[in-house]
Amino acid sequence: MDTQHLSSLFELLQIPSISTLPEHRPDMQRAVDFLIQKLKKLGFSCETFQAQKHPQGNPILFAERVSNVDSPTVLIYGHYDVQPADPLEEWVTPPFEPAVRDGNIYARGATDDKGQLYTHIAALEDLAVEWGDSWPLNFKIVFEGEEEMGSEGISAWVQEPAVQEKLKADFCVISDTGFLSADQPAIEYGLRGLTYMQVDVKLSEQDLHSGLYGGGVLNPAHALVEILNELYDAKTGKVLVPGFYDQVKELTSDERTDLSKLPHDDHEWLKLAGQAQSTFGEEGYTTLERTTARPTLEINGIWGGFQGEGQKTIIPAEAHAKISCRLVADQDPEDIAQKVTSYIKKIAPEAIAVSTKVMSTGYPSLSDRHSRWMNNAVQALASEFEVTPLFARSGGSIPVVASLQRFLGVESIMLGYGLPDDNLHAPNEKMAMSQFVKGIECNKRFYRLCAQEE
Amino acid sequence: MDTQHLSSLFELLQIPSISTLPEHRPDMQRAVDFLIQKLKKLGFSCETFQAQKHPQGNPILFAERVSNVDSPTVLIYGHYDVQPADPLEEWVTPPFEPAVRDGNIYARGATDDKGQLYTHIAALEDLAVEWGDSWPLNFKIVFEGEEEMGSEGISAWVQEPAVQEKLKADFCVISDTGFLSADQPAIEYGLRGLTYMQVDVKLSEQDLHSGLYGGGVLNPAHALVEILNELYDAKTGKVLVPGFYDQVKELTSDERTDLSKLPHDDHEWLKLAGQAQSTFGEEGYTTLERTTARPTLEINGIWGGFQGEGQKTIIPAEAHAKISCRLVADQDPEDIAQKVTSYIKKIAPEAIAVSTKVMSTGYPSLSDRHSRWMNNAVQALASEFEVTPLFARSGGSIPVVASLQRFLGVESIMLGYGLPDDNLHAPNEKMAMSQFVKGIECNKRFYRLCAQEE
Repeated sequence: MDTQHLSSLFELLQIPSISTLPEHRPDMQRAVDFLIQKLKKLGFSCETFQAQKHPQGNPILFAERVSNVDSPTVLIYGHYDVQPADPLEEWVTPPFEPAVRDGNIYARGATDDKGQLYTHIAALEDLAVEWGDSWPLNFKIVFEGEEEMGSEGISAWVQEPAVQEKLKADFCVISDTGFLSADQPAIEYGLRGLTYMQVDVKLSEQDLHSGLYGGGVLNPAHALVEILNELYDAKTGKVLVPGFYDQVKELTSDERTDLSKLPHDDHEWLKLAGQAQSTFGEEGYTTLERTTARPTLEINGIWGGFQGEGQKTIIPAEAHAKISCRLVADQDPEDIAQKVTSYIKKIAPEAIAVSTKVMSTGYPSLSDRHSRWMNNAVQALASEFEVTPLFARSGGSIPVVASLQRFLGVESIMLGYGLPDDNLHAPNEKMAMSQFVKGIECNKRFYRLCAQEE
Repeated sequence: MDTQHLSSLFELLQIPSISTLPEHRPDMQRAVDFLIQKLKKLGFSCETFQAQKHPQGNPILFAERVSNVDSPTVLIYGHYDVQPADPLEEWVTPPFEPAVRDGNIYARGATDDKGQLYTHIAALEDLAVEWGDSWPLNFKIVFEGEEEMGSEGISAWVQEPAVQEKLKADFCVISDTGFLSADQPAIEYGLRGLTYMQVDVKLSEQDLHSGLYGGGVLNPAHALVEILNELYDAKTGKVLVPGFYDQVKELTSDERTDLSKLPHDDHEWLKLAGQAQSTFGEEGYTTLERTTARPTLEINGIWGGFQGEGQKTIIPAEAHAKISCRLVADQDPEDIAQKVTSYIKKIAPEAIAVSTKVMSTGYPSLSDRHSRWMNNAVQALASEFEVTPLFARSGGSIPVVASLQRFLGVESIMLGYGLPDDNLHAPNEKMAMSQFVKGIECNKRFYRLCAQEE
């Protein structure tokens, strides 16, 4: 590999483009500027857009390089925003100072998604040498900066008729997923959707002395616990919100057979899950099914009252929780948000103020496993990695995939290079150097195949 | 009032003697040194002790001034430690920069307990002028520095035979309680005890991506919610731990009649409770009964996962709660700790690591309302404040009162000067200036009465 590709990636990883933290807004623009500079050198024309729904949101970068209107058109999607890096003290090297150790590139965004996104720019840089001025494919690129906050902006943007015209393509390729294991590539044909909410319980204007007020008011933490406990049954792993499972497309027996063939070992998987001691979930489903083809309701964060060392005898003034549902086809995230909101309203204790807000929603998706472009992806992966890829479902969410499918009729090929131990969304996120290098080569193979006449 | 008293109190309030935060250990000694200097000037001999149970704990200051072995001996108890001051941003003026506004002294510890403690030193300074060299009462003083962390050290200390000999007294006087309203003094004859615990749930070594692991492991926040929900019923206000109420001394009908005569208005009380919207608690009891004569189990703090702005799609690695029970006679805090611990062990989900630790315990107490010293206290309050004090129970805990009763047979007179809106344990803690001034005068009246022949 041209070492220039790695040093360019490092430059991108050094930009702390954390989309959920407003103080990083200038870094979002820096990341966009970096990408524009790279794409312009390749002959792309570049524009940025502010999504209608988020006038204060982060830019969507659209870039285009049309060589021949009769050639197939590829739409490449990626996201330049990253998750927050806390807890900082758990990183071996700082999250925005990329470091190579043991054949891995460590940095926030290394695998999700800057490293994977960059395999496409690097591939095009290499192919540009091969192809000269006359490229056999037209390329459109959309890099967004709100994926880690739910992609609501781009989901609204692609609903504009002018945007739909602009993004017209034969297919979309996305590298933001991963292998099943270090030597087993996979193409994910199903992605989970997301409904992210916050629940706020407020008792009073300030914390109260538990000796003076204890027993006489409803503790907001108790009220929150009561509500959360009615949303989810920690004994059975079932979501208790009425109607939650109504639209779930049950796995077919064929799919279950295929999923059962995927390499998966609960014991190894638990090690990857931060040394968790035991699997747990809905009865009647395997771990893989639970985490990819079944919907969930998880508490992402909970807080209220005293959290310091020692003891403080207070009743918290407020208590809060962030909760999110991972959804599967054909659940509708807006409908789920509505059901959770109504149910909380119904079960909330009268003695205290309970409110909810929906923070983001994204649709689940399921793709056709047998299209021409999908076949090319299978062939590229099989040649580069010398293993036939398996079809899998992903437990994660890439809301834009569902939006492209719903509003543009463009199907996405998930050409993912992540590995299961990449620590994405966690401290010490990494991308294996070999995945970065081979990812670039695989993309080149894929684009060459797509460029061939049918 | 000698303005010297106020400026001395300010000096004491400026010392951030927060006992639960180890970084403030040097401040504990500074507070002790300040008190020793004051007491030595009054002719007291002073010693400090480290309680056996807490070799690294804060000093207990013991001071003694014996004039005549045949005179009655008073034991004065107070505590020089204070609660943490967070959230700092909610203080109008900084917690350790005492300020006078609208007739109130604002500072952490203003009322709990430095301001109240200081009414005794100030009273003795005034009486020293009156009495000259020949004091008609012997005084022993115990000022401790671990009240806000549960008084475990002093509770162990008073169990030593040598200490019991040293502390021998006819009665103990404590100013660490309050009035029922600005113009209604009260003597609290019952205090609640305390069992303070922490519950820790750990899933993994790091936060997990909810897309990759959601549905396949038990979320520690869900497990914690499940456990907390089984400890307390937020619908009925009842503690659900088996045997929790077994040793509770039910209120007599006489006591309930007396309590019902106490001035109390739920609507006003809710305003004091930080504008809480509604009272809530055990059915069949009034708010006053619930908060003073009934035991509780409250969540003092809860935390786990992402608490920032925006969203982070993780399963928390860990979740935690601080919980505490306020206890009434004849509940045993060690027994309650044992019952809660056993019950959590029994109900904890198997799929995840749950542990508990007991952080402190303190016994409840109930005192005789008709002793000679109690009558003196009633008379002093009635003369100084021109209102007959009422007997009440306190919802708070002063564990040392129970220890003095249990191990020394010394009864405590609760001569409290706090007001209900003093914001104790909360931001903007204050003591009314008039309560400080009259408190000093009332103490002088009380000591004069105690000095009279029977």
